[in-house]
Amino acid sequence: MEQEYASSLLENAVTELSRLPGIGRKTALRLALHLLRRDSSEARALGESIIKMRDEISYCRSCHNISETELCPVCSDVRRDHSVVCVVESVRDVICFERTRQFSGVYHVLGGLISPLDGIGPDQLEIDSLVERVSSGEISEVILALSATMEGDTTNFYIYRRLGTLPVRITQLARGVSVGNEIEYTDEVTLGRSLLNRTDFATSSR
Amino acid sequence: MEQEYASSLLENAVTELSRLPGIGRKTALRLALHLLRRDSSEARALGESIIKMRDEISYCRSCHNISETELCPVCSDVRRDHSVVCVVESVRDVICFERTRQFSGVYHVLGGLISPLDGIGPDQLEIDSLVERVSSGEISEVILALSATMEGDTTNFYIYRRLGTLPVRITQLARGVSVGNEIEYTDEVTLGRSLLNRTDFATSSR
Repeated sequence: MEQEYASSLLENAVTELSRLPGIGRKTALRLALHLLRRDSSEARALGESIIKMRDEISYCRSCHNISETELCPVCSDVRRDHSVVCVVESVRDVICFERTRQFSGVYHVLGGLISPLDGIGPDQLEIDSLVERVSSGEISEVILALSATMEGDTTNFYIYRRLGTLPVRITQLARGVSVGNEIEYTDEVTLGRSLLNRTDFATSSR
Repeated sequence: MEQEYASSLLENAVTELSRLPGIGRKTALRLALHLLRRDSSEARALGESIIKMRDEISYCRSCHNISETELCPVCSDVRRDHSVVCVVESVRDVICFERTRQFSGVYHVLGGLISPLDGIGPDQLEIDSLVERVSSGEISEVILALSATMEGDTTNFYIYRRLGTLPVRITQLARGVSVGNEIEYTDEVTLGRSLLNRTDFATSSR
């Protein structure tokens, strides 16, 4: 194998790049040869940014989002409503909700969803810490903002059961027709939910 | 911008990853979050392999393929026929020809093709060194193995003109129907060429 690329250095880089999700050996080779054609400083900047990120990034003590400080920018922002907690699967989902600019509360990042098939149980997720956070009594609403999949539903239900006895309002994201989508191409389950949970025209259409 | 990802370390890694060809910011974020979930040693191995490859890889003095030694494994192999030189565009093409296991000669990597639209002239390619190599008198055949594109044809013709006065046989790759392709879906130019350059059945069909 080592002879395939005429250089074990190239071979190594291709092997490491192809460990990334969605990148096969062919793409990895294309990326490596691209880096070889570019200035040495570019490869160094890329390599160092990856190592530095992995070594130095830490997690927010409160919401478990990535953070460079003990509390992330959201959790340390006094202008945000700390009594409303939006429960999300991942760091990426926090970025998605922040982009909407529609949420002024704080987050709780689970770090995954319950998925027996993948061997992920409640213990591997930040669910105990959520229960603890809500038990403090300072939380008035928990918004379950997980994906509308079987794993998301399972996790929603598990959290609902764990929080059931605490005096907190538990809500979940509205399920309905996506903005911009045509009725014709919306599946019947979504359409049925959107009918059941219809909202008053005057308040919802802005 | 820096606030988009809650961490400038993540931001940096995403920016550097998205400089790679075919990788946008969305994919770069996915790769970065993947690395954050994996062991620290994996990110370090990736980062270091990239830096090491770019800093330490050098080029073969004879054929300009990548190499860790002064002469690449192909050029230093005495069992190969050093009088037959296969002219290719890139390091990747050498890998492609080596995979065929059909070529026992040596290579000459041009490092690109003549492309006036992209501002690439003959001076930026390893053409002078090819002429020099052939001028030594030790080369009996030069195989032009460039892509069947306008840039490939232009480069072929330019090299043909430059080598024209030297006592060397100049050949090019056969153009014809790809193995596994149906006649119905082969374009007429290729089909015409495959008819003109037909070969004796007994020798070519193995």
